[in-house]
Amino acid sequence: MTQNSNFYNRHFLDHISLDCVVFGFHDNQLKVLLIRRKYTKEWALPGGFVKEDESIEVAATRVLQERTGLDDIFLKQFNVFSEPGRANRNPTVTDLVGSVANPDLEWFNQRFISVGFYALVDFSKAEPTPDSISDLCIWKNLNEISSLILDHNQILNKALETLRLQLNYQPLGYNLLPDRFTMPELQKLYETILAKELDRRNFQRRILSYGILNKLEERKTGGAHKAPFLYEFNLENYQKALQNGLNGGW
Amino acid sequence: MTQNSNFYNRHFLDHISLDCVVFGFHDNQLKVLLIRRKYTKEWALPGGFVKEDESIEVAATRVLQERTGLDDIFLKQFNVFSEPGRANRNPTVTDLVGSVANPDLEWFNQRFISVGFYALVDFSKAEPTPDSISDLCIWKNLNEISSLILDHNQILNKALETLRLQLNYQPLGYNLLPDRFTMPELQKLYETILAKELDRRNFQRRILSYGILNKLEERKTGGAHKAPFLYEFNLENYQKALQNGLNGGW
Repeated sequence: MTQNSNFYNRHFLDHISLDCVVFGFHDNQLKVLLIRRKYTKEWALPGGFVKEDESIEVAATRVLQERTGLDDIFLKQFNVFSEPGRANRNPTVTDLVGSVANPDLEWFNQRFISVGFYALVDFSKAEPTPDSISDLCIWKNLNEISSLILDHNQILNKALETLRLQLNYQPLGYNLLPDRFTMPELQKLYETILAKELDRRNFQRRILSYGILNKLEERKTGGAHKAPFLYEFNLENYQKALQNGLNGGW
Repeated sequence: MTQNSNFYNRHFLDHISLDCVVFGFHDNQLKVLLIRRKYTKEWALPGGFVKEDESIEVAATRVLQERTGLDDIFLKQFNVFSEPGRANRNPTVTDLVGSVANPDLEWFNQRFISVGFYALVDFSKAEPTPDSISDLCIWKNLNEISSLILDHNQILNKALETLRLQLNYQPLGYNLLPDRFTMPELQKLYETILAKELDRRNFQRRILSYGILNKLEERKTGGAHKAPFLYEFNLENYQKALQNGLNGGW
């Protein structure tokens, strides 16, 4: 790596990046936070690089704070993406920086090994904010996301696959749903992640059997008799199930 | 990073390493493969670096092939270790290369972000082989491992914690146990990973309920009436349980 005085080379570690799959849930839709690159108008996952005094978790927390305005985000490493050709899918890195005369060009052009994080955030509290090489940062419905840059579709799919596996043994939803929610809302969240429909009664019986929900006295809307009941997570049992699995430890 | 003509700088990516927690099971003991550094006689996990044409998985597979002689190892990324001070715990990097005049010194002295893999191997088939900076490569009983270099104790503990969580929702043992094994052997494996004793009858009832075992007609030793029955994994159900969890998917 030659020493030049560009911004990235001075501030960040070579070869290491991170990409964040940020999930939110709103209007019965699972949403993913995307940015749009300034020059090519291509869509990408939000991401960033690692400063000398940062662990990869601290770097990811900083990136997510910058993109959402949120300080206390639930985020988790889920996979390292390191295929030697993963950056070659981008026709040219000038797409990223706008001009071949940009001093950051060589830096962006190196091989990056990217640590994937997924984050679960409260949709209503996030304030999506683009980074310096993007002109948009918005939520997209999962089922409306098409082509992303580089291997970002693969990163998104691997994050979903990770959530899908976790639904089989860990609770999910505390960071995504509002404090109080209906059974149909929780079911819709599961259905979106699993990409299949679930039987209403089986879902309710099974999810209630884990003891992670408190049924509240109130219903969704005052008055109407047919309005669905509201639930909240039983946080003590939820935490235990995160640790020991939904069926308890050995 | 200055350009010098040392071996490591020419062959491997800066800043990225990998460390492997290799588990084996023998004589009712969970064992971990360790190497001993030539100069300081300190113990470490086997590890390595990433070549330009390698993904991190290909690099880990190569490292494990070199250390064990085995080609087809079950291995899995479990965490990235990236604390900025993680290498500072080593008093001096010359421990590693033997002399301050070693041209690799500067390369070893940089900050590394390490991808942790755990591997489950057939103890009887592995042929432990030291690397170029080590004079020993041997199996150590888990409960006899004391101080390792850098953050390697933390890496080992995180690997164990990962296995411990997985015992709650996924089957384990296929890559560690011989083809045919007794219930006490399987229980001992679980107990070692969980670091606690389990009730014999509860363990047997629960593990059989998952449908991942076939009970064989034969007993451990011919003749004796009290000899324990042999079991093998039902590979079809085992694979399903790996995918969907021990209690099935949604």
